[in-house]
Amino acid sequence: MAETGSRTALAERYGPAEADLPVAWNDVLAGLLAHRSVRAYRPDLLPPGTLETLVAAAQSAASSSNLQTWSVVAVEDPATKRRLSAVAGGQRHVVEAPLVLVWLADLSRLEAIGRRQERPTEGLAYLETLLVGIIDAALAAQNATVALESLGLASVYIGALRNDPVAVAEALGLPPNVLAVFGHCVGYADPARPASVKPRLPQSLVLHKERYGAGADPAGVAAYDRTLTAFQEGQRLEPLGWTKAALERVRGPEALSGRDRLRAALERLGFGLR
Amino acid sequence: MAETGSRTALAERYGPAEADLPVAWNDVLAGLLAHRSVRAYRPDLLPPGTLETLVAAAQSAASSSNLQTWSVVAVEDPATKRRLSAVAGGQRHVVEAPLVLVWLADLSRLEAIGRRQERPTEGLAYLETLLVGIIDAALAAQNATVALESLGLASVYIGALRNDPVAVAEALGLPPNVLAVFGHCVGYADPARPASVKPRLPQSLVLHKERYGAGADPAGVAAYDRTLTAFQEGQRLEPLGWTKAALERVRGPEALSGRDRLRAALERLGFGLR
Repeated sequence: MAETGSRTALAERYGPAEADLPVAWNDVLAGLLAHRSVRAYRPDLLPPGTLETLVAAAQSAASSSNLQTWSVVAVEDPATKRRLSAVAGGQRHVVEAPLVLVWLADLSRLEAIGRRQERPTEGLAYLETLLVGIIDAALAAQNATVALESLGLASVYIGALRNDPVAVAEALGLPPNVLAVFGHCVGYADPARPASVKPRLPQSLVLHKERYGAGADPAGVAAYDRTLTAFQEGQRLEPLGWTKAALERVRGPEALSGRDRLRAALERLGFGLR
Repeated sequence: MAETGSRTALAERYGPAEADLPVAWNDVLAGLLAHRSVRAYRPDLLPPGTLETLVAAAQSAASSSNLQTWSVVAVEDPATKRRLSAVAGGQRHVVEAPLVLVWLADLSRLEAIGRRQERPTEGLAYLETLLVGIIDAALAAQNATVALESLGLASVYIGALRNDPVAVAEALGLPPNVLAVFGHCVGYADPARPASVKPRLPQSLVLHKERYGAGADPAGVAAYDRTLTAFQEGQRLEPLGWTKAALERVRGPEALSGRDRLRAALERLGFGLR
């Protein structure tokens, strides 16, 4: 039973060729491997206490030096969701999901405490400290994702909020030194519009032993292009494979949907980036 | 039983005042809330297949536009662990843990594929794309943490690898456009030197509804200082509370252990940071 579970899960995650990876197995692992990003929700509200549960899980993730340089805004108001959706290029699920979390790298808390105590907080002006906030927000959000999936809920991250972080800051009343790292739609998946597990690169490209090896091995990339093309055909999506779509996304600033101006936006939001 | 579980878990995570938060409960949530960072390991090796399991869980986390801009190096060689430990200010557990994962923001894979296909990859030179790699690496690592804890293992992140990313790149043979975001010690916790659940800020400071509210509310901060002081006394640590230690860490560049030079290091590693 457990054996069948891992073989099926691995075949969905990597394609049939890797179904025999020697993985351990339990219910938590089964849940993690079955993750899918969901972009179609039922309108049903979440049960009371769900938000507090997700935040307790999020706060249980590690925090660099326990600085806790992150916060989260929970948005249910349709007008605010529409504003966020507009920033994200009109993604419908941002309006449709009953709950949209916006995960923040938040250096304003320590800045405010320092000001109150008349203590210097010059360290907040360094790029490193912004990265601490971003990393801690991501760790927290991922714990929330694991938690919500354990409750039968589904979600998708919305990196496209970084298309215009200044507009997001205005919509949510963020103080200076706070960046909306990404949004996170949460709700019940609409069974009429199901999402599938997306295949990933073979482990041989991603996992390196002792030293960095062949991260872009041509045979591995070609195998993944075939796996993803077959997946796309099964989903009635354009069978582009991976390489073509990924290279399209990184070809230049014009393909970054405004995020080529992220550095200027961060400066406007008050970050030092030293 | 489940009720007792959540009350106890919340009291450990937030102090007794928040033990009545209205959270949902199941085994996955119990595992997430019980997380602790472990810095003392038994020498026992991990069972075969553990590494592949953790990477499968990590790859199951969301990836921005499916770009998969991360990789991981698994280090078991004692000499390499000693080099990493030296970068991290001599942290003993980096040598002691049987496995040290180093999570990488990896833009080199797409760069190599683009070069092979004679396609432009100018988008990789933007700060946004580095952030995508960092965020995706953090999401992946957190899934690995959930997975390893489900297998009875323990871990701690080592942000101090960012004290000197160039030295880490040399130790692991990283190509240009790859950043070691953080290390990750993995092993069996030594029961003779147990770790405890660390209390976190009250939810009232971290969770904002609809708009950003009081992220540094003085009463909430004071309550947390008392909770953390009591925790430190129980652990026979110096009872500094939170505010004092956190402000010490962000007081200026001299407190950042070399990470005030992160931006220069990123440029040396080949990142454009536009």
